[in-house]
Amino acid sequence: MTNTRTETDSFGPLEVDASKYWGAQTQRSIRNFPIGWETQPTAIIRALGVIKQAAAEVNMASGKLDARLGKAMVQAAGEVVAGKFDDNFPLVVWQTGSGTQSNMNANEVVSNRAIEILGGEMGSKDPVHPNDHCNMGQSSNDTFPTAMHVAIGMQARDVLLPGLEKLAAALEAKSDEFKDIIKIGRTHTQDATPLTLGQEFGGYAHQVRMGIERVKMCLPQIYELAQGGTAVGTGLNTSKGWDTAIAAKIAEITDLPFVTAPNKFEALAAHDAMVFFSGALKTVAASLFKIANDLRLLGSGPRSGLGELILPENEPGSSIMPGKVNPTQAEALTMVCAQVMGNDAAVGFAGSQGHFELNVYNPMMSYNVLQSMQLLGDAASSFTDNMVVGTEANVERIEKLMKESLMLVTALAPTIGYDNATKVAKTAHKNGTTLREEAVGLGFVTDEEFDKIVRPEKMIGPSD
Amino acid sequence: MTNTRTETDSFGPLEVDASKYWGAQTQRSIRNFPIGWETQPTAIIRALGVIKQAAAEVNMASGKLDARLGKAMVQAAGEVVAGKFDDNFPLVVWQTGSGTQSNMNANEVVSNRAIEILGGEMGSKDPVHPNDHCNMGQSSNDTFPTAMHVAIGMQARDVLLPGLEKLAAALEAKSDEFKDIIKIGRTHTQDATPLTLGQEFGGYAHQVRMGIERVKMCLPQIYELAQGGTAVGTGLNTSKGWDTAIAAKIAEITDLPFVTAPNKFEALAAHDAMVFFSGALKTVAASLFKIANDLRLLGSGPRSGLGELILPENEPGSSIMPGKVNPTQAEALTMVCAQVMGNDAAVGFAGSQGHFELNVYNPMMSYNVLQSMQLLGDAASSFTDNMVVGTEANVERIEKLMKESLMLVTALAPTIGYDNATKVAKTAHKNGTTLREEAVGLGFVTDEEFDKIVRPEKMIGPSD
Amino acid sequence: MTNTRTETDSFGPLEVDASKYWGAQTQRSIRNFPIGWETQPTAIIRALGVIKQAAAEVNMASGKLDARLGKAMVQAAGEVVAGKFDDNFPLVVWQTGSGTQSNMNANEVVSNRAIEILGGEMGSKDPVHPNDHCNMGQSSNDTFPTAMHVAIGMQARDVLLPGLEKLAAALEAKSDEFKDIIKIGRTHTQDATPLTLGQEFGGYAHQVRMGIERVKMCLPQIYELAQGGTAVGTGLNTSKGWDTAIAAKIAEITDLPFVTAPNKFEALAAHDAMVFFSGALKTVAASLFKIANDLRLLGSGPRSGLGELILPENEPGSSIMPGKVNPTQAEALTMVCAQVMGNDAAVGFAGSQGHFELNVYNPMMSYNVLQSMQLLGDAASSFTDNMVVGTEANVERIEKLMKESLMLVTALAPTIGYDNATKVAKTAHKNGTTLREEAVGLGFVTDEEFDKIVRPEKMIGPSD
Amino acid sequence: MTNTRTETDSFGPLEVDASKYWGAQTQRSIRNFPIGWETQPTAIIRALGVIKQAAAEVNMASGKLDARLGKAMVQAAGEVVAGKFDDNFPLVVWQTGSGTQSNMNANEVVSNRAIEILGGEMGSKDPVHPNDHCNMGQSSNDTFPTAMHVAIGMQARDVLLPGLEKLAAALEAKSDEFKDIIKIGRTHTQDATPLTLGQEFGGYAHQVRMGIERVKMCLPQIYELAQGGTAVGTGLNTSKGWDTAIAAKIAEITDLPFVTAPNKFEALAAHDAMVFFSGALKTVAASLFKIANDLRLLGSGPRSGLGELILPENEPGSSIMPGKVNPTQAEALTMVCAQVMGNDAAVGFAGSQGHFELNVYNPMMSYNVLQSMQLLGDAASSFTDNMVVGTEANVERIEKLMKESLMLVTALAPTIGYDNATKVAKTAHKNGTTLREEAVGLGFVTDEEFDKIVRPEKMIGPSD
Repeated sequence: MTNTRTETDSFGPLEVDASKYWGAQTQRSIRNFPIGWETQPTAIIRALGVIKQAAAEVNMASGKLDARLGKAMVQAAGEVVAGKFDDNFPLVVWQTGSGTQSNMNANEVVSNRAIEILGGEMGSKDPVHPNDHCNMGQSSNDTFPTAMHVAIGMQARDVLLPGLEKLAAALEAKSDEFKDIIKIGRTHTQDATPLTLGQEFGGYAHQVRMGIERVKMCLPQIYELAQGGTAVGTGLNTSKGWDTAIAAKIAEITDLPFVTAPNKFEALAAHDAMVFFSGALKTVAASLFKIANDLRLLGSGPRSGLGELILPENEPGSSIMPGKVNPTQAEALTMVCAQVMGNDAAVGFAGSQGHFELNVYNPMMSYNVLQSMQLLGDAASSFTDNMVVGTEANVERIEKLMKESLMLVTALAPTIGYDNATKVAKTAHKNGTTLREEAVGLGFVTDEEFDKIVRPEKMIGPSD
Repeated sequence: MTNTRTETDSFGPLEVDASKYWGAQTQRSIRNFPIGWETQPTAIIRALGVIKQAAAEVNMASGKLDARLGKAMVQAAGEVVAGKFDDNFPLVVWQTGSGTQSNMNANEVVSNRAIEILGGEMGSKDPVHPNDHCNMGQSSNDTFPTAMHVAIGMQARDVLLPGLEKLAAALEAKSDEFKDIIKIGRTHTQDATPLTLGQEFGGYAHQVRMGIERVKMCLPQIYELAQGGTAVGTGLNTSKGWDTAIAAKIAEITDLPFVTAPNKFEALAAHDAMVFFSGALKTVAASLFKIANDLRLLGSGPRSGLGELILPENEPGSSIMPGKVNPTQAEALTMVCAQVMGNDAAVGFAGSQGHFELNVYNPMMSYNVLQSMQLLGDAASSFTDNMVVGTEANVERIEKLMKESLMLVTALAPTIGYDNATKVAKTAHKNGTTLREEAVGLGFVTDEEFDKIVRPEKMIGPSD
Repeated sequence: MTNTRTETDSFGPLEVDASKYWGAQTQRSIRNFPIGWETQPTAIIRALGVIKQAAAEVNMASGKLDARLGKAMVQAAGEVVAGKFDDNFPLVVWQTGSGTQSNMNANEVVSNRAIEILGGEMGSKDPVHPNDHCNMGQSSNDTFPTAMHVAIGMQARDVLLPGLEKLAAALEAKSDEFKDIIKIGRTHTQDATPLTLGQEFGGYAHQVRMGIERVKMCLPQIYELAQGGTAVGTGLNTSKGWDTAIAAKIAEITDLPFVTAPNKFEALAAHDAMVFFSGALKTVAASLFKIANDLRLLGSGPRSGLGELILPENEPGSSIMPGKVNPTQAEALTMVCAQVMGNDAAVGFAGSQGHFELNVYNPMMSYNVLQSMQLLGDAASSFTDNMVVGTEANVERIEKLMKESLMLVTALAPTIGYDNATKVAKTAHKNGTTLREEAVGLGFVTDEEFDKIVRPEKMIGPSD
Repeated sequence: MTNTRTETDSFGPLEVDASKYWGAQTQRSIRNFPIGWETQPTAIIRALGVIKQAAAEVNMASGKLDARLGKAMVQAAGEVVAGKFDDNFPLVVWQTGSGTQSNMNANEVVSNRAIEILGGEMGSKDPVHPNDHCNMGQSSNDTFPTAMHVAIGMQARDVLLPGLEKLAAALEAKSDEFKDIIKIGRTHTQDATPLTLGQEFGGYAHQVRMGIERVKMCLPQIYELAQGGTAVGTGLNTSKGWDTAIAAKIAEITDLPFVTAPNKFEALAAHDAMVFFSGALKTVAASLFKIANDLRLLGSGPRSGLGELILPENEPGSSIMPGKVNPTQAEALTMVCAQVMGNDAAVGFAGSQGHFELNVYNPMMSYNVLQSMQLLGDAASSFTDNMVVGTEANVERIEKLMKESLMLVTALAPTIGYDNATKVAKTAHKNGTTLREEAVGLGFVTDEEFDKIVRPEKMIGPSD
């Protein structure tokens, strides 16, 4: 840091890199919190920009904020929203639990940038003060929770839901493509009655579709914003209607249906909406884990596994085993799912730990939820592109395994009874013979009856 | 076991206590799974009874089941529903993961009881066979997941929601009772701007109301029943329409809006609806934890704590400290919340572990979800009756603490600026003086201005 | 409750079932905590008996306790240890978080039983008072944590470690039995280079052995007892040396190396030793999960799975599919492992939540740890007896799969290079041919060289 | 990417930024895994460098690797260890679950750098081939787990343990500093018998010391290295003694006591040692959470909280409340602890999910464990420097609260009995009087007796 500028806060002056827009409180946080490597996610930075822009606009409209200052602040905040100042938000997640320092980081950047626009001297807080102007009508206690919800809302629309939609569509396409391939079912990992490969993929697709529904069910609670609660939820230092006005403005800027939270005390002191939302993410993770795990097992081989699916080959699989190809996309996805499970545990824990008027686990909770969303969205997309789309059925092997199955005997049970059918299956298993041989040999049915009853294509749905 | 009866299954004969109605498969499970002390929850037993009754009725209606047998089976199953055979379900949770043995337990009890009603010999499987008749059109693979959903649906209505409703109503009543008591707010556990005690309790009440909403949002997915999927989801060995017919019958018996699941493959192979539901329970736990923790801290003392609340005294608090009274209901409730968090982790893990056509963590998942529901419902109710209802405000102390607070300075900030207001607060803190003394002494306001601006009753909401 | 006796505590009189030995505080707890169905585990009851017996003996020895009373108390407490009063401990886990009410339950039962022995009137507290005599030198705050540690110590010796030892020994025996069976390895679920089935089971056995080691590593911290800290850790109302004396007495009674905790403040306010111990249990669960999951996948089939192992058939597997046999022991065990993971999350959460001088999650923490131990011990034992011992290798199939594997090409890589070896494997895979055909056909080796290099029996260890 | 170089793998050629040293497999991974923002932790990169250096040295020593090539490779790998190539490891955590691509990244960087040193053409694989030379005797399946253990071992020594040691020492110093300050104890958050502030801090210090012990207890299992197991644990393509030789070399390079794992099958297929280690980290988190939470509550105020501690003021606390100071270091630390709890859940889940010869959650498990270590070490250090060291006792307030406490009555119980002592405390509480007034007034003791018995300085330990 060769070239510096003096910035001050109520604790005194501090030197800041002259090429940066942040002020004393940000610099102080860098010094006081040398913890870890995780900086605030970009989505949080942009969301803070959205709030600062919306606040300036609402404050100008109400006449509380001088228009000259306000316009410069709107421009400055808009640049934060556009990503021009991403590198001016150096703070880590592990700071004050209210996110105060990141809120001040936003205030300081907007203040200094607006001062610059207005031809003033950066660091002077004149004519745009980080607290009095940029934070007007706000407290970190309502601003940061608002930023969390705004960031999640945008990330859901932009990353999570597109990834899940892509995956659902691809699985549905495969379900359709595979709709006539009858295969052996497996329950308890053991041979069971048949179904079509299309039905199997249809189950996967339904899981993902429901996951999308669950995420969407939770979003209205995320759309409720704490902004307007200020320090403890009362709205001190705001005017009546400020809360609804700024929510409307944020909705306008983001094009998402944000509204003001009906109870600001709850919105500051608890983050139940995020805990619930994280539960939906965990449910998605449980679904995707099951799907990815099934695909790699069904595609196991190439010669000594189940071998029903032929998975795409994307890269060399082994540094020691030549020619090996592995279901690496399934691995990345299942690792992501495990991470989301852990994140959900962290979020639930933190969500329960509010004291009195404030929960001070804000940056950590948003870090986890946003990470879970990014990972699920990205991994679902990559898994689709690099694995699902290219997956093919090994029709020959599927048919072979299906025909040998002893569980086709289930079709006989309504006719010859459960106990006799058991005898047929067990004898065939013991003797290494076919069901037909034993069913006829034991005198339970004739060859003709067997042919009529034991037909896999009749076993993949209810009888008429 | 002095008096026994011989029962048989495909593995051979076994002796069963003659006073019990179960058969060979139940007895075999007792022998093969000497694990733990947790038997199937009563709610599961009753739900299996509901299914067996509904199945017999639907099968009679379709003509597949002889009416004489069917009527006896309906009577027998109805007795299971009524709780007459609770002690005939001895199996532990830690059995086959599909719950097959508990399904057979139900089949065997209904079969033997129906045989008894019809004057036959118990253990003969004649004229009512546990598989061919009691399990007609069913597989454990669809029956047990159905029982899980039915049990959860009933438990939500009968235990969980009433407990939460009672708590929400009590908190709302307290919020109203306390609406004029202005108190100091606390953020970061430190003194902050004021709010009313009614607002504080209103935040709690809102949390619980939202918890009720979240549970209700998840219930429609619980109302979807796997029944009709049979072994692998295809519905083999059922007729078309069986699935909707039995769902309708179950809805009728339970008076809950059960419907058939739109995708039976998903309904057998995954339990995402339960994972999501458990996430809602965890969110409720996070809410209740925060509330209970706040109450015990606000009620800490009697002489050396915060002392704002006077908590009811229910029992001697200490075996060594005479006269001690403790917030034991808060402790029971927070222990319950911690348990629910753990249960949710177990449920999420298990929900991700399905293989192919079946998830085999059924009894364990329902055990956890039902335990969480029972504990939350019971503890919310007990916490309400034994703690919330009797909680009183220590008005004198609340007023004293509020008036001394330095954070009333926040009201001055819009007038004298953030930096000057900071100086006032810091000087008063350093000197042990009042805000007024320093604000006036430092020349920022006159006494009259101070009186006009710093009025706690004006600080509990936005300005007009 | 037809026949009752009046018992009193500082809150007044209460009627108690005359056939029971508990007093007013227990009865009050029954009334005040109608939560859930989980009563205190038997191990906790017995451990409380141990403490009451030890305390009476130490107090007699020091002359503080009259010998006549003391002897009766020792007899009464001994009967609790022997299990004669298990049905006199009706309290649920979800009570006061210090376990005070269960401690008082023990005091009341010992008091009344001692009064009975001495010919007094039950309920009179004369001549044996539940607090003054039975709780002499104790507080619930040190007594219940001590009971937790004593119960865990006994449960480790009596249930957990025997179960794990049995499993380790069985896996080692299988490892030895299978030591000459060469099979295909699988990494990423895909075909890999060979190993012996004995090596594979040897890995499992090592996991369990290490699990035993981990449990044992944690036990010395469990052997440290809080007793002697009394109310807040200072040892108020005890004499110097009381803590070491009672630890020694408890060690004598239980035949386990209990010692007094070096820091009583930590021993009351935190339960880190239990959190750490639970982490060891979770590690065991992770190990057992992997083993059980592998066995069911290796034993999948009978005709359409991997089929390398033949798992024992213990019971009918399906209520609808005749003749189906399932790896139910693996299912019970994996359900147990999932539960232990959840319990560990609950324990970690609770362990972090102490306030000041006390952690008030005692009964919930011990309930979880003891449940995890019981389940792991029981399930390991049942899994061994009913699955591992009877597992056989399907030698024919193992050999077939191994010989077809393309990953035997790895042996060629050091000779012909990774890139050429890759070409051999990929060409064979594409053409459905053997490695030999392609390796020789592509001119990389002669038939003789191939035979010399690609020998599975040479691939199961480092070269000399 | 304006200037590129062609690199090839068995899937074909790819263009790579000419300024980078990585090859085709790294580039392919970048393309195939566009998931998340988390790249491999630096500690993993350095550890891979350690392994590549050690392998080259051992392979030269055994004569398998040409010395000219080997020396260049040792130099190149040494540069990786020194951090010169940190920006040449672009891969994310969410890749193949074996970490194969990061292992190949290391092979490719070392290969190209060694080629450069030897004057060859980067990308030519000549004279140093990434597989044949850099990966000689290795597989990703043993290399990446080895890198995980090496990274953890180094991180424990360099980050985690120094942070914990610093905190333990600071708490011990405070315990000593505060040893004569008698204060009220609090159990159940309610007033209890006294102890010294030094005793309270001594409990905290003991927790941290035990945390250090627990971490150290787990490290020997981390010191066991998988290297030498190669593809499936057998050690194929190594020579006898390779495993011990490379472990010794790694120990030499890192100055840590690494040894070869006794069972390589377990070392590849499971990561139980990491699950156990993570349990120790969670235990540390539980300890630190309790300590940080206590400090902020004891330091709550400045006027309306418990106010026993005066916490250092490090930065402005609120963007809206002037003069507010918050316990932000406690907040950062408790957020870290919540994260570690979540990470532990993720690690346990992943650790259980190995299949057959390999666990494919490697990068995700090491990411979580290393993050937990970094955060705990950093946050413990920051918490010490910025909070613990500057914490002071508010002696005046502590004494006031202590003297008013009704729980001093406990000292009377051994003399006047528990029931009478209860009466004294309850009457004083009801009347707002002192214990003395009521104890004497009720006739239980004289003033002199009261003075002799109720002496706080006698209540902070056992009687003689």
